[in-house]
This record gives sequence, structure tokens and C-alpha cells, in this order.
Amino acid sequence: MLLPSINARHYFGGIHTAVQLYRALEKHFPATRIVLVDSAPDAAALERFSEHTLVDCAADSAASHQIVPFNDRYGRTVPVGAGDCWLTTAWWTTYSAQRLAAWQQQQFGAAGRLINLIQDFEPGFYPWSSQFALALSTYRPDQDVGVFNTRLLADYFELQGLAYQHRFVFEPTLNDGLRHVLEQARAKSQPRQRRMVVYARPSTPRNSFELLCEALRTWGWSDPASAQWEVVAAGELTADLDLGPFRVHALGKLDLPDYARLLATSAIGVSLMISPHPSYPPLEMAAFGMGVVTNRFANKDLGNFSPNIRSAEQFSPEAIAAAIAQEVNEWERRKMSPLGLMGEDHAFLAEGGFDEVAKQIAHSWHCDNREKLK
Amino acid sequence: MLLPSINARHYFGGIHTAVQLYRALEKHFPATRIVLVDSAPDAAALERFSEHTLVDCAADSAASHQIVPFNDRYGRTVPVGAGDCWLTTAWWTTYSAQRLAAWQQQQFGAAGRLINLIQDFEPGFYPWSSQFALALSTYRPDQDVGVFNTRLLADYFELQGLAYQHRFVFEPTLNDGLRHVLEQARAKSQPRQRRMVVYARPSTPRNSFELLCEALRTWGWSDPASAQWEVVAAGELTADLDLGPFRVHALGKLDLPDYARLLATSAIGVSLMISPHPSYPPLEMAAFGMGVVTNRFANKDLGNFSPNIRSAEQFSPEAIAAAIAQEVNEWERRKMSPLGLMGEDHAFLAEGGFDEVAKQIAHSWHCDNREKLK
Repeated sequence: MLLPSINARHYFGGIHTAVQLYRALEKHFPATRIVLVDSAPDAAALERFSEHTLVDCAADSAASHQIVPFNDRYGRTVPVGAGDCWLTTAWWTTYSAQRLAAWQQQQFGAAGRLINLIQDFEPGFYPWSSQFALALSTYRPDQDVGVFNTRLLADYFELQGLAYQHRFVFEPTLNDGLRHVLEQARAKSQPRQRRMVVYARPSTPRNSFELLCEALRTWGWSDPASAQWEVVAAGELTADLDLGPFRVHALGKLDLPDYARLLATSAIGVSLMISPHPSYPPLEMAAFGMGVVTNRFANKDLGNFSPNIRSAEQFSPEAIAAAIAQEVNEWERRKMSPLGLMGEDHAFLAEGGFDEVAKQIAHSWHCDNREKLK
Repeated sequence: MLLPSINARHYFGGIHTAVQLYRALEKHFPATRIVLVDSAPDAAALERFSEHTLVDCAADSAASHQIVPFNDRYGRTVPVGAGDCWLTTAWWTTYSAQRLAAWQQQQFGAAGRLINLIQDFEPGFYPWSSQFALALSTYRPDQDVGVFNTRLLADYFELQGLAYQHRFVFEPTLNDGLRHVLEQARAKSQPRQRRMVVYARPSTPRNSFELLCEALRTWGWSDPASAQWEVVAAGELTADLDLGPFRVHALGKLDLPDYARLLATSAIGVSLMISPHPSYPPLEMAAFGMGVVTNRFANKDLGNFSPNIRSAEQFSPEAIAAAIAQEVNEWERRKMSPLGLMGEDHAFLAEGGFDEVAKQIAHSWHCDNREKLK
């Protein structure tokens, strides 16, 4: 597996999911290694992979589970075997692995299978530019295996003319750390506080923090009900924010139990995501019986995911403000009684993780390999 | 018309085209004004609009042609009449005019018609973000008139689900300043020099300068013929660039006659554009009988524009390098004799400008207006 980093400060959702998939695939292969292309692992990170051996990229080690730092690589190479196959994550890891596979083709007559774990349409993280173009060039739907985080994203790729011939899809599920509080809330339904939770991540452009603020400001000036509501920001905001009509109270990054209790006692959530990927916060808020305002994007309309989610039709501040006002109005009308919590049979609440998809991927890989060895 | 600026240092292709359209529309309307939203006009700019009166935004002037600086607008407003209609250019001018038109609707019972001059898919200039979302929100295909610079771009909008009900399309034509040298070259065909002209604009991400350099480097290391070729950069590059296998000779920004002579004596052009808009350089190079290497994008394949243009299928450095190598190979095989110059009946060589499209737009506007006044 090629991965940017396993250090705690880079260990967000995307890398966590990649490691989960790697763990589930491990048992199907005689030997595995993680090649780290952006950051060398620190001691705490290596402890989380205690059954792995730290291997210098110049060494030809026989250890069956290796961690190979390859961030400091000027003039250096990493050994590659004929049977090596590749699990790639961020687009620049795919870009590198595709060139490693081309080298296998030259040296050994066959390129190793490349399994591309796709968790967003990464060209969208850039303006139209060289980076956009190179990220786009890593999608080879006729050659590589695509493993998609959500069907929504897989469908978006098809809409872009990127239909992977070999494709696997998995769906997001609720973080285990939130389940306990959800079950408590399910057992005892109480009216919610007049509290709106907004997901504020100014450092992540696709969470469109500025548009969120403009929409809140527009709602605040136009809806008299706004004076009765408390607005709190979960995510990254560390100082309160004066929007004019009201202040947003910054909660910073909450630990999981606090986050769960916030969702279980609040009424409305607002979380934007300019991407076909659903992102977790609107799904989590909906699971806890909150009324959620979010945006559509191409084929994405999370109203299909839960009746608790309202997708604004437009990206304009006015359209998002109107959706918030409607949601507020319905909570007032219902006297703050919560919406239905997510049913226990909803796919988002399923447990079990990556074992099934890993089995399928490994099976497909072994078939492909037998074919090549014939 | 809402325009960012008319000052020389902002006066690139997009603004020039907007002014040409405005000039052609002027005669169909009793009064016109240019509202400048980003930069106040300097003396030289005002001289180019000598029949226009400079009007302060607070004034209610009766002058029939006005220039209204509105860049410094904190706490200020601009007078708007019931019959005013809007010609918008950059997406933030459209964003503003849509709110002015909503104000007309409130005040007068009818919003003025909004004519959106669309010269690129502007959300693509940003990563997925608030700016992307707001730019996208300005496309209202059910409400506004779309005037598209090229059918390719108009078709791309349709592919994105943005099919304007009222739509006008115009095509790019050769700059008049290049015509004389083109006719000279047509009269006397001579073998070309082993010179490759690359379009280098590091400041414009969608011209993907980094990808251009990587492709040239890849070609330089892999194709022995590269040692015989001179590579020069037109556009913005002011210092020579050592790519490893060879140096790129920087020509900086050329004036039109020098640019035309360069095209008339060189063999190969390389110009990338990560957008459905064709951009002018590959069309100009092809008109002068050069062999052009460029990229595809969504529905864009400039091979349909001229047989002299070769569109690389992929964005990878290797794919673009391979297209360059093929082109070099064919020039060597032809002993440097030029490709056919563009036929005089090709639409790119048409003259006449914006009169016809302006007439249609004005006609449509006047019909719409009569309808409203009924």
C-alpha cells in the first residue's frame, strides 16, 4: 500500500479508512508493506503497527509485514518484485504506483494489479491546472481496479465517463464511538434544545465555510426566529464568530462522546460539502434525529439517504438560508420534538467493516494473477 | 454592462471580447453604461471611451453613455431604473446583477433581463469551495440569456446539465493584427525551421505550465531527435529555462507582427488548456500551417477544428511527450515542409465581428421587454 503518512496528525478519515482496508486485505496475502511517501513514521505511529518491521528503502528485507519510509527519496529507489500488486490512496500515490507497475511490465513482462482506493474525485481539490490534470490522469478505468467509498461517488465517476470495469463499492457506517449515545437517545426521546450545530472547517475548501457564514448571516437578518436559537460550530473553529445578527459559539474539535451528546440534544445541523461524497457529519446528524440542511452536488441528494436531510437546491446564500428558515419553522411547529432516529436496520448503522469487500478484492486479484501465470 | 475593469493592465482577451460585444449592442439601446466593479478607470482607459461620461455612482445622470466606477462601494449604492437590463461578464458581476435584478422585481414588479456573456466554465478556476459554489450558482439557464464564446463551451454547459433556454453562440476569429503575415505566408510557402513554439503562461493555472515542462522534459530525454530542435516559449516566460535535456529559450510577450512571423517560420506548436474553451494559441498556430500538440478536455478535441492539431488522449507527461515525438517524426519525414495553411473559407478567418449576434440579442431583448410592458 502506498500512503502519504501514518502519523497521528495526518490520521483523518481518509487515511483511517485506507488502513482499515489494508488490515482486512493483509490476511489474504503472503506479505505486505506500507510505503510512506510524504512523512516518515514517528514512534507512536510505529507502535500502532507493532507487527510491522521498519525497513529502509535500500534494504531487500524478507519481513512479511514492512513499513518503508520513502518520503526522503532523492536519488533513491525501492525494491519491487514481479508479483507485487499495489493498493493506492491519494492520487499522487496512484501516479507513482502506475509508474512502478510500468517498470514491472518492462522488467518482468507483467505489471502488478493496481487497486485504487477512491474516496473523492480528487481533481476537484484543485482549480483547472497541472495538478488537476495529473490527478485526472491517474484514473484508468480500463486497467485498474477501483474501490469506491460510497456508491454516490462511484456513480459520479460513471457520469464523468470514468466507468471502472473492475469496481468495488463500500458504504460509510457510523463511527463505533458514537453508537452508545445513539442507543441511549433511542431509548429515551426528549424535546431538543433550540440549538443549531454547524460544521465549520475553514481549512477544507470543499466544506465551504464562507458560504456557510453568508447563509447563516442571511438567515439571521431575515428570520425573526433566529434570535431564539443558539448556533454552535463543531469542527475547527476555536474562537466565537460575530456574524452580525448573532454570534456563532465555537466548540472546536470535540471528542466522540461530547460530539455524540451534542447531536443527541440539538435540533438542527448545517453541514456543506462541495463534492459528490456525502461526508460523515450530515449522516451522523441525521442518525441522531436532527434536521439537517446540506447541499446537493451533481448526482448527490442526501434526501435519499434519510428523510431528516434537506438538500438546498442552489448554492446561493439565499437558498441555503431559506432551507434553514424552513427547518427552523418546522421545529417550532413540532414544539422541538425530535425527528425519528435512524432505524437500526439502516445500512449506515451496519457493523462488520471491510472483511467482505477485502475478500472480494483479494479473490479478484488472485484470479487475475493465476491468469497471468498461465 | 458590469465589468471588472477597462484599464490596460486588465485588458486581456476576455475583457476585450466583452467590450466588443458591448460596442455592437450600444446602437440598439437608447442609453448604456459600464459599471466597473473591481478597478477605477485610469485616464488612458477613459480616453478609449471618449463618447462616455464619467459618472459618480451617487449621481442620477441623464448622459446616454456612462462609465460608473463602483469599485469603492462600501455603504454606497448605484441608481437602477425599471427598464435597465444587464450584460454581465466575470461570474461575480453576474452574482451582483442577479441581486440588482431581484431588487428591480421588488421595486418595479419586473426584473430586468440578464445577459450573461460566458467565456469559460468559471467554477473550474477554483477548487471545490465557496467560490466554486458561488460561481456555479450564477448559472441560471431557465432565467438568464447565455451568450457563449464558442459552441464547444456551450455544449460543455449542456453536458453539465446547464442548458440555457435562451442561448447565443459566437466563434473565435483570428486577430486582425495577424492577418497580413498569414496572407504573406500563404503566397510563398517555405520549409520551416526546426523550431518548436510552446505557449508558456505560468500565471494561468489552466495553461498547466508544470505539465508542459514535464512533457517537454520527458520528450527531451526519450527522443534523440530533440537535440536538433530549438524550443522557444511565447507568452509570459522572461528567462530561459533549463529543463535538463535542453534549454527553453524565453521570448516573453511578443507584439502581434513578431508573433505572426514566429508562427509563419516555425514547425511545431505546443499549447495546453485545461478547459473546454479552445483558447486562441492552438487555433492561431494551426492557421499558420504549424503542427500543433494540445490536450483534450471533456467534449473538446481540437482535431475537429483543424487537421493540423493533434490532441493528446491523456494528461500524463508521457502521453503529451509521445504526441510531440510523433509530430517531430512527421516533420522530419516531410523534410520540414509546412502543413496546409488554414483555408480562407474557414470560420476562424471570418471577419465581421459581433454585429450579427448583437442584433439577435437586442431583438430578443426588445421582444421580451414588449411582453413585460403589455
